[in-house]
Amino acid sequence: MSKISLSSNDLPIEHVAETSADINIAIDIMGGDRGPHVFLYAVENILQKHPKVNLTLCGDDKSKKLFASCLANNRVKYEVCEQIVNMSDKPTMAIRSKKQSSMRKALELTKCKEVDACVSSGNTGALMATAYYVLKTLPGITRPALATLLPTQNNSRVLLLDLGASISYDAESLYQYALMGSILMQECQLVEQPRVALLNVGEEEIKGHSLVKHADLLIRSSDTINYIGYVEGDDIFAGKSDVVVTDGFTGNVALKASEGIASFLSNEIKTVCTQSFFSRVLSKLAMPLFKSLYQRMNPDQYNGASLLGLRSIVVKSHGNASPEACYFAVEQAIMEVKQSVPTKIKAKIEQELMEH
Amino acid sequence: MSKISLSSNDLPIEHVAETSADINIAIDIMGGDRGPHVFLYAVENILQKHPKVNLTLCGDDKSKKLFASCLANNRVKYEVCEQIVNMSDKPTMAIRSKKQSSMRKALELTKCKEVDACVSSGNTGALMATAYYVLKTLPGITRPALATLLPTQNNSRVLLLDLGASISYDAESLYQYALMGSILMQECQLVEQPRVALLNVGEEEIKGHSLVKHADLLIRSSDTINYIGYVEGDDIFAGKSDVVVTDGFTGNVALKASEGIASFLSNEIKTVCTQSFFSRVLSKLAMPLFKSLYQRMNPDQYNGASLLGLRSIVVKSHGNASPEACYFAVEQAIMEVKQSVPTKIKAKIEQELMEH
Repeated sequence: MSKISLSSNDLPIEHVAETSADINIAIDIMGGDRGPHVFLYAVENILQKHPKVNLTLCGDDKSKKLFASCLANNRVKYEVCEQIVNMSDKPTMAIRSKKQSSMRKALELTKCKEVDACVSSGNTGALMATAYYVLKTLPGITRPALATLLPTQNNSRVLLLDLGASISYDAESLYQYALMGSILMQECQLVEQPRVALLNVGEEEIKGHSLVKHADLLIRSSDTINYIGYVEGDDIFAGKSDVVVTDGFTGNVALKASEGIASFLSNEIKTVCTQSFFSRVLSKLAMPLFKSLYQRMNPDQYNGASLLGLRSIVVKSHGNASPEACYFAVEQAIMEVKQSVPTKIKAKIEQELMEH
Repeated sequence: MSKISLSSNDLPIEHVAETSADINIAIDIMGGDRGPHVFLYAVENILQKHPKVNLTLCGDDKSKKLFASCLANNRVKYEVCEQIVNMSDKPTMAIRSKKQSSMRKALELTKCKEVDACVSSGNTGALMATAYYVLKTLPGITRPALATLLPTQNNSRVLLLDLGASISYDAESLYQYALMGSILMQECQLVEQPRVALLNVGEEEIKGHSLVKHADLLIRSSDTINYIGYVEGDDIFAGKSDVVVTDGFTGNVALKASEGIASFLSNEIKTVCTQSFFSRVLSKLAMPLFKSLYQRMNPDQYNGASLLGLRSIVVKSHGNASPEACYFAVEQAIMEVKQSVPTKIKAKIEQELMEH
């Protein structure tokens, strides 16, 4: 059972800064739905909270003035880019025809080590394809995976991956996702031995299709993964596991279906609270409860999905992210740089290769 | 592009009762998590509301006394069964070794036309496998599909299928699910031209894996399906479509992930409402709001998943269904009998075969 094989394309892994050294982050400010100004709050806060972090903003000429106050600080640079990747651009088109885009620039800066990581709110398909094309995967990693943190019932967090970075997959990819997810939770969320689970349609051994069963065997045979077996869709949020692994198609649908029902419930609450004069009065009275609920659930703090398995750090911010949410995405990138996530994934893969 | 082919095993389709004639329903009362008494409310209510419906309860000898009051009515029969299918029984084991079970009895009664439909809260895997084994699929249907109604934002309902009746699938199965789902929505929910969508990771043509793209072409080529193209996970609850088609693995995960986040949110509301004396007072005041929200969302009314594509009607009630939810599952079975769902699926398939 070969879970990892080193590709011939075994390039050296990108440099990642040490905790004590300066950390450099590139931000593609152009891709989001709300416009580039949405990153202003993040830039101001990062400058204040992280004295050793420098930022390179990649955007068009027109947007530069939005950041005039920040650019007075010599820790902020602005790269003027001639193109923007639009939400409707196809991934192959973005790679071929948007070589001067802010997204491409942020990735190229990461590639040539001018920065340690990049953050973008842009077109997810284009970002994943361009990142894969520009940065390449780590030796031994077949496919990159997109991973996000989600809240769980015991006030903890769970990492779900893949969310659609790759649509085609095999059992080996699922095993690699398990390994990468485990490292991210250990290093960035400080979970000592992350409990890793595989998403399936039942918890019993006989459940699921052959790819899931094969992946189960592969993950089970690893000495470095704390594997707890299968979980079902409703277990994602139950706090049973720290990492939930699935293929990109299923992960994408599961995440979006959860977002859909959450938005539906939130709309239902609004409807109920405004359906009569009496209910409007009651909902005003209950406002502290709703505020407290919102603070517990605040989706902003979960913004910043990590594209794992590449030779550098790429964080995807939600296209519709709020200023605060954008700040959390940049924080996620800084944390991954501090913890040298790609180096640790590479080391763990080499260790697994030695053992098998 | 062959979407349907008649199998050699072209048995005549089971008889279904006419609206004016008596309707006979078998209920496997043994399978649920809460015990057989949970069906008492359903039996009493069905007897009262449907003067032409007769019920056959399949259960063990011990449970018969629970229904003593109902059995005084000559429209209720009790079949004493020697075995029970447990939640831990594997499907193949249920088929081979539980031939005297209440689940098997209810399905056999349907097979030999003593009843028009059966309802069970039992082990889903065992029910689907045994139903497939005992009743067989309709000519032209490769695999049965499990379909359930879900609430949507515009106060309407959407049918999601497959939920895991079949784990392996091909593009033709997805096409057949689209056809069957469309018929169920038209006949039982009275939606005139149900908008049918295919679940994918993006709405653009280039998105998704080859099986989804192939299914998209097949469904698009049908004259009888009102196909609206791809939708994403968050669109399930958005009211964009009346039927959402996907493979059993993805559908199962999407449904359970949605249940998981709904349960998580409900627990968070409870936590927020009880975290201090002040919040307990506020939540008491806001109780009418919570009650109104619960009434709108009440999951009981969505109980009763239909196993489509078989030669008779089988409705799966949730294992943990409440008495009211069990009642809705029996109502679903009655509705499918009244609308002769299997006959209409068979007719539509023959029509499609004629046209292609």
